[in-house]
Amino acid sequence: MLRTHSAGALRASDAGTTVTLAGWVDRRRDHGGVAFIDLRDSTGIVQVVVREQVADQLRNETVVTVSGTVSVRPAGNENTGLPTGEIEVIDTDVTILSQSAALPFQVSDHAEDAGQVGEETRLRHRYLDLRRSGPAKTMRLRSDVNRAARAVLDSHSFVEVETPTLTRSTPEGARDFLVPARLRPGSWYALPQSPQLFKQLLQVGGIERYYQIARCYRDEDFRADRQPEFTQLDIEASFVEQDDVIQLAEEILSSLWKLIDVDIAGPIRRMTYREAMARYGSDKPDLRFDIELVELTEYFSETPFRVFRAPYVGAVVYPGGSTLPRRQLDGWQEWAKQRGAKGLAYVLVQPDGELTGPVAKNLSEEERAGLAAAAGAQPGDAIFFAASDAASARALLGAARKEIAVREHLFDEDEWSFVWIVDAPMFEPAADAEAAGDVAVGSSAWTAVHHAFTSPKPEFLETFDKDPGEALAYAYDIVCNGNEIGGGSIRIHSRDVQERVFSVMGISPEDASEKFGFLLEAFKYGAPPHGGIAFGWDRIVALLAGADSIRDVIAFPKSGGGYDPLTDAPAPITPQQRAEAGVDHEPEDEED
Amino acid sequence: MLRTHSAGALRASDAGTTVTLAGWVDRRRDHGGVAFIDLRDSTGIVQVVVREQVADQLRNETVVTVSGTVSVRPAGNENTGLPTGEIEVIDTDVTILSQSAALPFQVSDHAEDAGQVGEETRLRHRYLDLRRSGPAKTMRLRSDVNRAARAVLDSHSFVEVETPTLTRSTPEGARDFLVPARLRPGSWYALPQSPQLFKQLLQVGGIERYYQIARCYRDEDFRADRQPEFTQLDIEASFVEQDDVIQLAEEILSSLWKLIDVDIAGPIRRMTYREAMARYGSDKPDLRFDIELVELTEYFSETPFRVFRAPYVGAVVYPGGSTLPRRQLDGWQEWAKQRGAKGLAYVLVQPDGELTGPVAKNLSEEERAGLAAAAGAQPGDAIFFAASDAASARALLGAARKEIAVREHLFDEDEWSFVWIVDAPMFEPAADAEAAGDVAVGSSAWTAVHHAFTSPKPEFLETFDKDPGEALAYAYDIVCNGNEIGGGSIRIHSRDVQERVFSVMGISPEDASEKFGFLLEAFKYGAPPHGGIAFGWDRIVALLAGADSIRDVIAFPKSGGGYDPLTDAPAPITPQQRAEAGVDHEPEDEED
Repeated sequence: MLRTHSAGALRASDAGTTVTLAGWVDRRRDHGGVAFIDLRDSTGIVQVVVREQVADQLRNETVVTVSGTVSVRPAGNENTGLPTGEIEVIDTDVTILSQSAALPFQVSDHAEDAGQVGEETRLRHRYLDLRRSGPAKTMRLRSDVNRAARAVLDSHSFVEVETPTLTRSTPEGARDFLVPARLRPGSWYALPQSPQLFKQLLQVGGIERYYQIARCYRDEDFRADRQPEFTQLDIEASFVEQDDVIQLAEEILSSLWKLIDVDIAGPIRRMTYREAMARYGSDKPDLRFDIELVELTEYFSETPFRVFRAPYVGAVVYPGGSTLPRRQLDGWQEWAKQRGAKGLAYVLVQPDGELTGPVAKNLSEEERAGLAAAAGAQPGDAIFFAASDAASARALLGAARKEIAVREHLFDEDEWSFVWIVDAPMFEPAADAEAAGDVAVGSSAWTAVHHAFTSPKPEFLETFDKDPGEALAYAYDIVCNGNEIGGGSIRIHSRDVQERVFSVMGISPEDASEKFGFLLEAFKYGAPPHGGIAFGWDRIVALLAGADSIRDVIAFPKSGGGYDPLTDAPAPITPQQRAEAGVDHEPEDEED
Repeated sequence: MLRTHSAGALRASDAGTTVTLAGWVDRRRDHGGVAFIDLRDSTGIVQVVVREQVADQLRNETVVTVSGTVSVRPAGNENTGLPTGEIEVIDTDVTILSQSAALPFQVSDHAEDAGQVGEETRLRHRYLDLRRSGPAKTMRLRSDVNRAARAVLDSHSFVEVETPTLTRSTPEGARDFLVPARLRPGSWYALPQSPQLFKQLLQVGGIERYYQIARCYRDEDFRADRQPEFTQLDIEASFVEQDDVIQLAEEILSSLWKLIDVDIAGPIRRMTYREAMARYGSDKPDLRFDIELVELTEYFSETPFRVFRAPYVGAVVYPGGSTLPRRQLDGWQEWAKQRGAKGLAYVLVQPDGELTGPVAKNLSEEERAGLAAAAGAQPGDAIFFAASDAASARALLGAARKEIAVREHLFDEDEWSFVWIVDAPMFEPAADAEAAGDVAVGSSAWTAVHHAFTSPKPEFLETFDKDPGEALAYAYDIVCNGNEIGGGSIRIHSRDVQERVFSVMGISPEDASEKFGFLLEAFKYGAPPHGGIAFGWDRIVALLAGADSIRDVIAFPKSGGGYDPLTDAPAPITPQQRAEAGVDHEPEDEED
């Protein structure tokens, strides 16, 4: 090693020790003949005293070794903000290992522009960005998160297995990235959207307890905060029931949040999908604040207001919203329109109880009289309405409740709220999936809410294909502060049930055989009941790190459109590469 | 859980306990009204007694739950070969969870055809293959190997970082797999041959100690026992020297071999590349046996035998080879020709000391008189010769020494022999690399032996580009029983040195800037000296498992040509997929 000690580890007890340190010049302060250098390595910062002539060559981020003697700082010069603040290194010899040019942005926490740099610039020079204390800490946290999760899984005898990434695709609601197979021209591998099929095959293979921190790939249109490659903690086990998976998952989550000194108390509450949609307008409700949806369909069943003669009418209360200026109320209309709604009907409940706003005068006197009570509004509140089909209206109200809470600071940023969402529908109309930006697998009117391999709850085993809209899935999603951070299910392990699910989804027997024949075949030879879960690892680390974006917890993330500002990938290929890859292979040349 | 106990864990001390087990029917033996079922789960096998009527439905590999009472077996009926052999489960209720069809091959260790199945069949039904005790044990060993390595790295504060797999390629001696970027039509990602550039950037980024069990990709022509995707334990650290990396690597290897109860004693010996080539004709010498190459160039400098008037003449002794029948000696000629040689000259040293064989009579009397002594042969031995350029001749003799040892059982199959090969040349003629099946990076007569990012040893820092053939690399490879299981180097961290290496390799400044501009740019801002190593994880697990092929230690390996007999990948894609992928994008439509 080019050093004898770590910079951040030196303490007063090391006084008198001769040390050699190696690291980066974080900053320098000149002080009449001598200069004070903050020397930074991965363990921290220590103050080093050098002669001015030496210091003159030391730009910020120059890499040096420093030999010298640890010395207690003169009384009054201690820096209590620094773990090494009681000491400094004196009588130093400095060797420059690597000089630094003028920086595109400053690295030191003391720099005035720290954190003020645009993301594209930070990503283009990610190797500088990672030296900053925040990103450096985040990378270490991510490593700790992996270790903590593995410790739990190891303690339960889970076996870590790597599954292939050059494979056939698992249709799971997104496009596949494709890889031409040079040795089989005209054929392509797909990068997996998840290890789903392989982890199920491992259960059929008797592995019984599998996990993997797995790289997954989805060729999506880069919705906000998605990455083309992402990571999930992938778990599957045999002979388990829903409670077993949930219990294991809670143990893992508990060990992760301990890393940031948060205790996840007791079993995490569970809520049915139906309840979540009805009360919060979302299958990933943020429960840190109390606003709930109120259904008023019945209340308005005889209304003279044509807009409210809808299959569903609901409301959320905006606490104190009656004083919102007209401009902001107009802004809410815009907000609703951007989400595909026609607008956001509202009523203001004045302090004297009078209802104002354009909607109020369209209501009957009786409706006006009872509305505040029916909606749970107090004088001074506003009431926001949505009236349409239940799904759209609830989605709008669910988004509105979140937006109200954010604007009005109705929740504690440091609070953690977890909830399991269970008993989701097995199927949804394919049109709904496509409207949400997913690829609806299959060609029928129905597609799977989770995926095609999710078992129905036992009580729907006989009927799910007769009445797909009523069937509930044996599935569970874990939600943290309104983010879905994991999801899983008990899987189908019977060929017959799997074929019936494919049939509901409009996957023909021929298609099923071509794409999933190996799974159906595997189920013939003694497949154990099994289930599992997958955690969105990037999202979880982002939550733990307090990061705004998953890009902050990925060492080398892509920016918009899957572009890497650092390496300039993706890039054109040469004609030779193209020819070799067999991309333009003509089928009539088929040799294999 | 559908079970209360694990089958393999039951002991006599559990007698009287009511248990529910879940697993597979490994085999059944009928016995007058009752049947004995070997019930298998991931923990082992236990004997279950069931009524004959029930047993009739239980085919091999049927999945069942069994409830019953643990009972000590009647005296004399114990099975000492089974950890559960003192007990059995009686008074049972059996529930069939999943029936099994007739099996394509048997799973039970007791089956007559166990292990006699062709690989293609095993891979097509890998989920059955993995239930067999050998493969199941290997999967678990692999998981243990990961854990053991991580424990060492954790103890040294290494940070686990995931690097991108949709990226630019790292030219490292093979073709890249390519991935069309739908959102940037005409542009392609490459799957990484290793995380090399990213791990170096992490060092520039101050991570200081990085590791990753990383998936890597090489689009090769599937030489024997290669896989298109493979795994390496990838390590990089800052401010380290060769000894630091070697010491860490030895600690990791030691912890891995402990898993199979082998102590790797003390520091592993080191040998220079030059010595390995001279004495063993290989840069990955198998040191479990003593045969060495003897150079006889000088000895034959005045020889009348024209074949031996070569730049290099060398020999290996075949102990006891003088009695080889003519047929076998002819076979050796064939063997040599298959390796590209013209043949394999030999001399037989008869028990009386007389030299026989076709070569002997071409030698001078003086040469004949001293040859056995010069070659180190005893009466009764054979001497094999190679005469040509040193590299080809040594390669042939190196292969011959290994082949002799295998045929004559000259080494202990249970012995482990490790050696570090250090001081390899920095560059080799590009023609040699291509002859070995590698892609020679760059367009000059020289290409890198390790890769373009390997530092010269300090003493060649000034001269490596003036005299590329003489420069030694600051590199180290670890060899186990003749297998290269890891390799690493101290890297270049200076822009100037890196550019000079590119220049030697014939990578123009424009090419260097286009392909590696980001690395050269990164080196401008204070790059620490750094180095690392990568272990071939599949090979290491194969050695530990005693497996013949790395295919045996991969859950779902590809067979020849990158084909997966299980999922039938790679496969054709639909015209829609092709259109969406942007493969056929015309540059004139360029939008970005």
